[in-house]
Amino acid sequence: MADPSTCPPLSPSSVSTAYGKIKPYIHRTPLITSRSLNAIASSSDPSVFLSDNPPAFDSAESNVNDNDALPRFRLFFKCENFQKIGAFKARGAFHAVLRLFDEMGIEEVRRRGVVTHSSGNHAQALALAASTFSIPAYIVMPSISTTSKIAGTRLYTSNVIFSGSTSEEREAVVAKVIKEKGAILVPPYDHPDIILGQGTVGLEMEQQLIELNGAQGERSGSNSFDAVITPIGGGGLLGGVSTHFSSRRDTLVFGAEPSFQGADDARRGLLQNQRIEHVKSLTIADGLRTPVGVTNWTIVSDKQKVEGIYAVSESQIKMAMRLVFERLKLVVEPSGCVPLAVVLFNREFRDMVAEQQRSPEGKGTWDVGVVFSGGNTTMKAIATLFGEQGGKGEGEREAGKVGVDGKKKVEDVAG
Amino acid sequence: MADPSTCPPLSPSSVSTAYGKIKPYIHRTPLITSRSLNAIASSSDPSVFLSDNPPAFDSAESNVNDNDALPRFRLFFKCENFQKIGAFKARGAFHAVLRLFDEMGIEEVRRRGVVTHSSGNHAQALALAASTFSIPAYIVMPSISTTSKIAGTRLYTSNVIFSGSTSEEREAVVAKVIKEKGAILVPPYDHPDIILGQGTVGLEMEQQLIELNGAQGERSGSNSFDAVITPIGGGGLLGGVSTHFSSRRDTLVFGAEPSFQGADDARRGLLQNQRIEHVKSLTIADGLRTPVGVTNWTIVSDKQKVEGIYAVSESQIKMAMRLVFERLKLVVEPSGCVPLAVVLFNREFRDMVAEQQRSPEGKGTWDVGVVFSGGNTTMKAIATLFGEQGGKGEGEREAGKVGVDGKKKVEDVAG
Repeated sequence: MADPSTCPPLSPSSVSTAYGKIKPYIHRTPLITSRSLNAIASSSDPSVFLSDNPPAFDSAESNVNDNDALPRFRLFFKCENFQKIGAFKARGAFHAVLRLFDEMGIEEVRRRGVVTHSSGNHAQALALAASTFSIPAYIVMPSISTTSKIAGTRLYTSNVIFSGSTSEEREAVVAKVIKEKGAILVPPYDHPDIILGQGTVGLEMEQQLIELNGAQGERSGSNSFDAVITPIGGGGLLGGVSTHFSSRRDTLVFGAEPSFQGADDARRGLLQNQRIEHVKSLTIADGLRTPVGVTNWTIVSDKQKVEGIYAVSESQIKMAMRLVFERLKLVVEPSGCVPLAVVLFNREFRDMVAEQQRSPEGKGTWDVGVVFSGGNTTMKAIATLFGEQGGKGEGEREAGKVGVDGKKKVEDVAG
Repeated sequence: MADPSTCPPLSPSSVSTAYGKIKPYIHRTPLITSRSLNAIASSSDPSVFLSDNPPAFDSAESNVNDNDALPRFRLFFKCENFQKIGAFKARGAFHAVLRLFDEMGIEEVRRRGVVTHSSGNHAQALALAASTFSIPAYIVMPSISTTSKIAGTRLYTSNVIFSGSTSEEREAVVAKVIKEKGAILVPPYDHPDIILGQGTVGLEMEQQLIELNGAQGERSGSNSFDAVITPIGGGGLLGGVSTHFSSRRDTLVFGAEPSFQGADDARRGLLQNQRIEHVKSLTIADGLRTPVGVTNWTIVSDKQKVEGIYAVSESQIKMAMRLVFERLKLVVEPSGCVPLAVVLFNREFRDMVAEQQRSPEGKGTWDVGVVFSGGNTTMKAIATLFGEQGGKGEGEREAGKVGVDGKKKVEDVAG
């Protein structure tokens, strides 16, 4: 990884520079809207639309038009589930690799290769970026990983290296690869180059909002979001996106995370004014099980950049996922549905928006950018989550796996 | 419904006229492409990409570039899952209603209302079209329908009328509604106005292919499809789309249907040169359980319009659905995945294409339009289909429901 001391500052113009670099290699993913989701989000109780006998659709829309119910939303979904490798991580990985070329030249990088010990979306993203420039990518993953996870990683690189399952064992293998091959470590989120790459999601969606308003000839449409909300796990995405919007006075940026088994470390860290270093959660939002990174924390805890963090329960994430799937016809992984779950179901978030909308200088309807961060899930995983067994007792099942006390432990403390 | 004798002829120009009428009321759904699906479709055995240990993605792409493997495809997916009410049926319903206005004036239609006994996508489409113009829509459905189906229909109309479960009982209630209210019957597929409305899918995707080639500046890209393939149930969609392309010498149109429990009535009808009038199948492709309509059959059996019909097994439909879900990140209902299943897994279809590609005047790669007809499924249905129980024994389970002999009866006779 490029030496952080040589990295560009964490500023909007650095995000813009990053975008210029990675643009030829990534997809410009669509920003979509949905009348039905706007109606549901603006109704007084969005969960009724998930009942066995939902209200007629007309009545939801008339809520938006006729009622005094607050909060009211116009939602804009940024579909990074359609990004290369199925997640925003392609942006950070390409940026990190291209920055390495700037630092040491492509030949040197090609000779040494890159390495990471993630086995999720970042591993695939790094493997893709590396293969694009014929650079070896070494992905270290525990030999006990599920077949599907190994297969998923092998889709993008043939250099999967197995290790023991503890983080010490994995890091030892990474150290060995670095020593033997001279490979360069590219971490999943805790580095300025990664953060700036992910920040291009924010820049791009803002461009698209302006285009959308232009195309619809809507003079009433604002050219800036009132709010943008992204998932937060390690903090690469939220860190980058909030950095991009930090110069926009009228756009507030929020983070969204799961509360299950303490995965809401960012929210709790802000409360205690200190980064939480360890998280051990098996939330269904598997991309958000990690603690916030060190560099990332400096951004997340900066009130000028991030306005607040809200958390949602496992069942709220599943409800949001069902709406995305059944109404929008899109496959978004559980982690990617967490921001929408906050908008629809987090009482504290909704009350805060309603209060601002009620104030004399408040806007009656907020334009909110909601980042669908990725779509990497499987039919099998869906069947497990939404099958008859998955519908109940997820607390027991998952708590059992982490070896805690076996009692149901679904935390429903939101916000 | 408009008197068929007053309907425009089943010709490309009538499809074009229909498009002019319905355009303000429907979505122009995207036509999308996927490098990975092209690679998979052009590999010698697409099913290996669904195994627990799929080949690295690079090797699939190099097949397309380097290998002599045939057939080779560039696929273009028409996403009618993003259409209003989640399926192409909105096109036919709007066209039927607008044609009624031409025939008898909007006030007369508003006074009498419209009625149908479908409870699927057509019912929702008709209810939407009717409510757009403040016309009552009566939807007759059996009182034993599942809660979710009743709820789904109620989303779009408050006039759900229950009947007994046999078709005689349903038709009696429809007759009563017609007698009492003077309501006008709008059938789901067997009428020229419906067929012409559905045909606009073909017209629109052809326009989009041209735009796509223009945008990419690809002089090599052809402005016509070599083939277009749609699902066939009642034959509204295939009838309309093949009518649109009937003046295009170089575009062949194919139909795709499930073979389970004899649902491949169109294919079998062509073999015996006679329309099959009764089908009793519980294929997972629930939109394709009906026999081909009478008017529709005149088109489907016309060699100038439809080049051929191919059938696939339940497991082939599920494999296609998994690829759509896991690779394209799109929710498409089982019926909508049948055409892709033919392209990927039907040996006879693939051999036919390969043979044409091998001939001296043949094109080495075919540009194929694949219609994703709808996306109306639920998380619950997916969980049942792809859960541990759904993975095996679907033959037994479903055969049991229709009361046949209880033996496994998955027909795998494809083509």
